[in-house]
Amino acid sequence: MVSERPLRLAITPTGLDKGALEAGQFLEIDEAARVVRGNGMPSAETGLHLAIVRTRGAGAVLHTHSLWSTVLSDVFSADGALALDGFEMLKGLRDIHTHEHREILPIFENCQNIAQLATQVEALLKHEPAVHGFLLRRHGLYTWGQDLAEAKRHVEILEFLLEALGRSRTGV
Amino acid sequence: MVSERPLRLAITPTGLDKGALEAGQFLEIDEAARVVRGNGMPSAETGLHLAIVRTRGAGAVLHTHSLWSTVLSDVFSADGALALDGFEMLKGLRDIHTHEHREILPIFENCQNIAQLATQVEALLKHEPAVHGFLLRRHGLYTWGQDLAEAKRHVEILEFLLEALGRSRTGV
Amino acid sequence: MVSERPLRLAITPTGLDKGALEAGQFLEIDEAARVVRGNGMPSAETGLHLAIVRTRGAGAVLHTHSLWSTVLSDVFSADGALALDGFEMLKGLRDIHTHEHREILPIFENCQNIAQLATQVEALLKHEPAVHGFLLRRHGLYTWGQDLAEAKRHVEILEFLLEALGRSRTGV
Amino acid sequence: MVSERPLRLAITPTGLDKGALEAGQFLEIDEAARVVRGNGMPSAETGLHLAIVRTRGAGAVLHTHSLWSTVLSDVFSADGALALDGFEMLKGLRDIHTHEHREILPIFENCQNIAQLATQVEALLKHEPAVHGFLLRRHGLYTWGQDLAEAKRHVEILEFLLEALGRSRTGV
Repeated sequence: MVSERPLRLAITPTGLDKGALEAGQFLEIDEAARVVRGNGMPSAETGLHLAIVRTRGAGAVLHTHSLWSTVLSDVFSADGALALDGFEMLKGLRDIHTHEHREILPIFENCQNIAQLATQVEALLKHEPAVHGFLLRRHGLYTWGQDLAEAKRHVEILEFLLEALGRSRTGV
Repeated sequence: MVSERPLRLAITPTGLDKGALEAGQFLEIDEAARVVRGNGMPSAETGLHLAIVRTRGAGAVLHTHSLWSTVLSDVFSADGALALDGFEMLKGLRDIHTHEHREILPIFENCQNIAQLATQVEALLKHEPAVHGFLLRRHGLYTWGQDLAEAKRHVEILEFLLEALGRSRTGV
Repeated sequence: MVSERPLRLAITPTGLDKGALEAGQFLEIDEAARVVRGNGMPSAETGLHLAIVRTRGAGAVLHTHSLWSTVLSDVFSADGALALDGFEMLKGLRDIHTHEHREILPIFENCQNIAQLATQVEALLKHEPAVHGFLLRRHGLYTWGQDLAEAKRHVEILEFLLEALGRSRTGV
Repeated sequence: MVSERPLRLAITPTGLDKGALEAGQFLEIDEAARVVRGNGMPSAETGLHLAIVRTRGAGAVLHTHSLWSTVLSDVFSADGALALDGFEMLKGLRDIHTHEHREILPIFENCQNIAQLATQVEALLKHEPAVHGFLLRRHGLYTWGQDLAEAKRHVEILEFLLEALGRSRTGV
């Protein structure tokens, strides 16, 4: 988030190699996803980012296409969510101070209609104020934080625990 | 592809450590695989690269010997192909705009007679215009693009999805 | 260990990104975990580090939150320990000169009451003088050495062997 | 190999962190493992390196403690060997020009009596002139080449194929 009022988010442009982005290529958008600074079109999933910012007041939103979020969002899709239980690493999530915690990651069916998905996400985030992230089936993870450092910490924790969960299910 | 007409491809020389190649070591060949610039003999699989360029008009062809392409090309060899279904990452493939897509990767039996293999590959690419790549059993992946950036993106997507497929089959 | 008498340990401050720490951010504490140099509060698990230094005379203590220590500490938790048998790499552990050795890593149930955990750890280390490390369930590995180089070598060996044990149990 | 006649090998000293070695720390030994240049004692396994140089005329010998060589040398120990069949990557091994090849890696029981192990290794290498490497159970891989580049290429190929074999056995 570049500013809160008026809302200005820095966001990646669509279609570019995210691994090769330079600072000057980021766009700045308003609360209606209109580009107010920069060249290009914002990420196709901008609507999800805005839904999270609106509902959670998040300062930063991060989205990954990682192996374990892709695989486990599919494995647990019939349950509509997966649970990460009893790990010390959960303590790094905002407001969690013990490993004796059950973190739920809801799983949404993936959808190209982002407005529709954003409505579902917004409903979830209002209904489940405790969640720190969610999964899109065969797509990836969304998480957020009050700032980029917190969002990044949440990504590290959740991705690590997704791998721990995945590994534990391979017969070890 | 260095030029289209006359056809000139830059290609790696055979026998050298690919991880240590310098720009000046690349060869330039014509449509009959004759070296027109540089020192050395072109890759032993040059015939496959030319078949792909001829049939698809590809600007760049990339070939990997990766772990998951090696393993899964063997696991699915009896089926003659493997399928990557419903992944968001499929949207990065040329002309694919939705995750609701089934990407088929045909699998050829490996063969040291490249001319024979090139004939099979050419027949496949004419018969199946939608494929973005194919596998050689216990060997690796071939993919391509209109330019190097697109070919590289295709490698990233297909290699990632091969790993996702492989992991999903280990009992997670 | 910065000095032995009086006891002074350099330790990471709590709450900071361990991957981004600079030398000047380390704290120095005494045998009662009081900060004698530096700004901030010491690691929440300082009590465990001190228990190990007291009981073993360790010059350095290292603690990891790795994938395999997290997963296997859970898999073997009912046994209260796991065993690493017959690996050449065991020879890198202090006082071990053959692969014909069975290294036991005790597993403690994780606990937020560090004083209580430290008491258990101290009892174990007095009762089992041969152990080179222990696991906290769904948390990670603790190991130590006479200096940082030895502690680091112990981390490398134990983490490698935990992965070897984990992989061997996946049906290979 | 620094020179062939008289035989001089450059070898790592024992006990030092191999990841931190500098060029000046390598020792030079003769055919009886006596140090002729440098400070320190040569690797504890020097006898194996010399046996390989003697029997194969190798210019370089490389030894790894990798995860898959450690795990699979144990999985297949009852068979006394493991086989790598039909992989394209086998073509990078000296004198192998087709994927239609079955590469055997003999497996020896690990032993701290290196002289005894060297005798076994020497007998094997005379009896099986085609092997490009062997495994020590729960220890690692030995391979060699006419020079360091060839030995390194052999390590890359064999380690890759060990992983491919391991992965293929995990139910993919």
